[in-house]
Amino acid sequence: MITLDLALVGFGHVGRRFVRLLDERAEQLRREHSVECRVIGICTRRHGTARNLAGLDARAAASLVEEGGSLSAIDAPDSMPGRLAAVPPDGPTFIRDLATAAHARQHGRMVVVETTVLDITAGQPAIAHVKTALESDAHVVTANKGPAAFAYQELDLLARGAGRGFYFEGAVMDGIPIFNLVRETLPAVKLTGFRGVVNSTTNYIISAMEDGREFDEALAEMQAAGIAEADPSLDVDGWDAAAKTAALANVLLGARLTPQDVDRTGLADWSGARIREVAAAGRRVKLVARARREGATVSAVVGAEELDAADLLATLREQQNALVLETDVLGDVAIVQLGGGLTQTAYALLSDLVALRRTLPFA
Amino acid sequence: MITLDLALVGFGHVGRRFVRLLDERAEQLRREHSVECRVIGICTRRHGTARNLAGLDARAAASLVEEGGSLSAIDAPDSMPGRLAAVPPDGPTFIRDLATAAHARQHGRMVVVETTVLDITAGQPAIAHVKTALESDAHVVTANKGPAAFAYQELDLLARGAGRGFYFEGAVMDGIPIFNLVRETLPAVKLTGFRGVVNSTTNYIISAMEDGREFDEALAEMQAAGIAEADPSLDVDGWDAAAKTAALANVLLGARLTPQDVDRTGLADWSGARIREVAAAGRRVKLVARARREGATVSAVVGAEELDAADLLATLREQQNALVLETDVLGDVAIVQLGGGLTQTAYALLSDLVALRRTLPFA
Repeated sequence: MITLDLALVGFGHVGRRFVRLLDERAEQLRREHSVECRVIGICTRRHGTARNLAGLDARAAASLVEEGGSLSAIDAPDSMPGRLAAVPPDGPTFIRDLATAAHARQHGRMVVVETTVLDITAGQPAIAHVKTALESDAHVVTANKGPAAFAYQELDLLARGAGRGFYFEGAVMDGIPIFNLVRETLPAVKLTGFRGVVNSTTNYIISAMEDGREFDEALAEMQAAGIAEADPSLDVDGWDAAAKTAALANVLLGARLTPQDVDRTGLADWSGARIREVAAAGRRVKLVARARREGATVSAVVGAEELDAADLLATLREQQNALVLETDVLGDVAIVQLGGGLTQTAYALLSDLVALRRTLPFA
Repeated sequence: MITLDLALVGFGHVGRRFVRLLDERAEQLRREHSVECRVIGICTRRHGTARNLAGLDARAAASLVEEGGSLSAIDAPDSMPGRLAAVPPDGPTFIRDLATAAHARQHGRMVVVETTVLDITAGQPAIAHVKTALESDAHVVTANKGPAAFAYQELDLLARGAGRGFYFEGAVMDGIPIFNLVRETLPAVKLTGFRGVVNSTTNYIISAMEDGREFDEALAEMQAAGIAEADPSLDVDGWDAAAKTAALANVLLGARLTPQDVDRTGLADWSGARIREVAAAGRRVKLVARARREGATVSAVVGAEELDAADLLATLREQQNALVLETDVLGDVAIVQLGGGLTQTAYALLSDLVALRRTLPFA
């Protein structure tokens, strides 16, 4: 049995669902994976910071935040050896302080769980948090696509050099284990490319427009459900899909792309009337992400396509996602997320912890 | 780097494609997985037996068999220490003799690669070969569904007790890593059931009937392509699907079913005219396999269903297969085989070898 010390950076819907899931599955994690998790710190932008080297009550912390309280009420800096930041720390300072304290007790067992709000045009502050974690000798799991989309090769190299884990299963298709699938279960298969539907908001909007609703109405529904990005252009103009495409291409095809390198068009030209016209002709409009390796270069594109109704991607309704892996020896293999949402993203973080734990020696 | 000693029992289309794939991927297996494979024996029903502890030229053996020759031409019993069977051995004797010889050189590195023709009503002779291998301290990988469909819990217990690997990824959906997917990438997920299309022959026949052909014509095409079972009733009456359903239920849901326990109906009542009538109404007929856990019991059923055309399973054409895993925390997750065939089944054996290798200590 080993104990992981978790430092949570960001504590929004995903982070709070994660600590509850961790609690619900604690017994199973102990029994089946010989791992226990202890939350030793939570750092937020608007609800303060809590630290306790003996372990925080993370469910209580989640309730506190949801009631509008501040985590400083349960902060226990005295539990930490050495100097602590006098003011509520920024993310990198929080990570460095906690790593120093945690490593004094057991080395190489701290994991930064990164779920901050992402600036999708630059990948920050997630990239800074991942770098700080790895440079502080901590492992990192993140639900953010920014690090893999903007800086995968650099961060992967950093993690390997430090002998630390860097996992991000939640970056694409929530908890569906795309990255683990390829890494763990497709040995000796060469990927030549992929295609998929990876943005839930645009897929939901297209489905709603096919059913007769208009764009603004469908978008408002998604925002109310907390699924669309606060700035809808990030979904509608294809930025979210482009970031996921870059992340997938970097990890699965060895590319060095950023979201800006993806040839990207969004739904701007697609009115409800036009989408219903395509549907009436027995076809379906989808925002499709594609990437392909040709020799040493990888090209990637995101854009609306008219698909035959019998195409696997055409059958995806509302928030469903799918990715078709194009391989040399297995032909095309698809993985499809028929349900999705908050719990799935939180689960991705948990599955990353298990993948990390498998790489650690038994204590 | 470790060297695995492979003993092939059965050397038909799948076995011969496997040894060629192994040769094509040898460099990649060495580089990425630190494993080398040496074929030390091949046992067939009609083409004799070859043994050579120094390693056989397996590609040459495949060509020899395809030209109608006998493997006894390259048999080198003198390479083996101790007493060898004087007559061409049966499968179990072949396995025991080779294991004794191979273990004298390096213990715990022999792998039986089992690809014999299956008696689907009893799971033999595959089950006897798997048992003999495990009792002889050898690992086993098989493309046969019989062992997992009829005797999974017993064989799994035997393998665990012996500290040996028992892998069968090729049993369902060829090389698509269903079993590895659940084992390696879905930690802390509880499966509550599954549904899928797992028999290629019936799916091809239904597609052909939708396109206007008749049953016998479509079946003959599949038999000519080597995809349909020699006895077509095994496919058409749902026996193949029932065996795969039992294997999936036993492994994924902890059931103790045999194919006879599956509530099974086939395509007997489905004429081309009836299938085209359903298609004209915008729906699709599929032979669907389902299993579900309710408390301590698992029920399983195979039968033709009329599906909405937008259902993921309804979009599967010709030889395509899919399995929808029903989970507690991730909702429904589907994996879809868009291409399939001989190479994919051979690949499944190779991926099993890599999965096995990962469990072995570095030499």
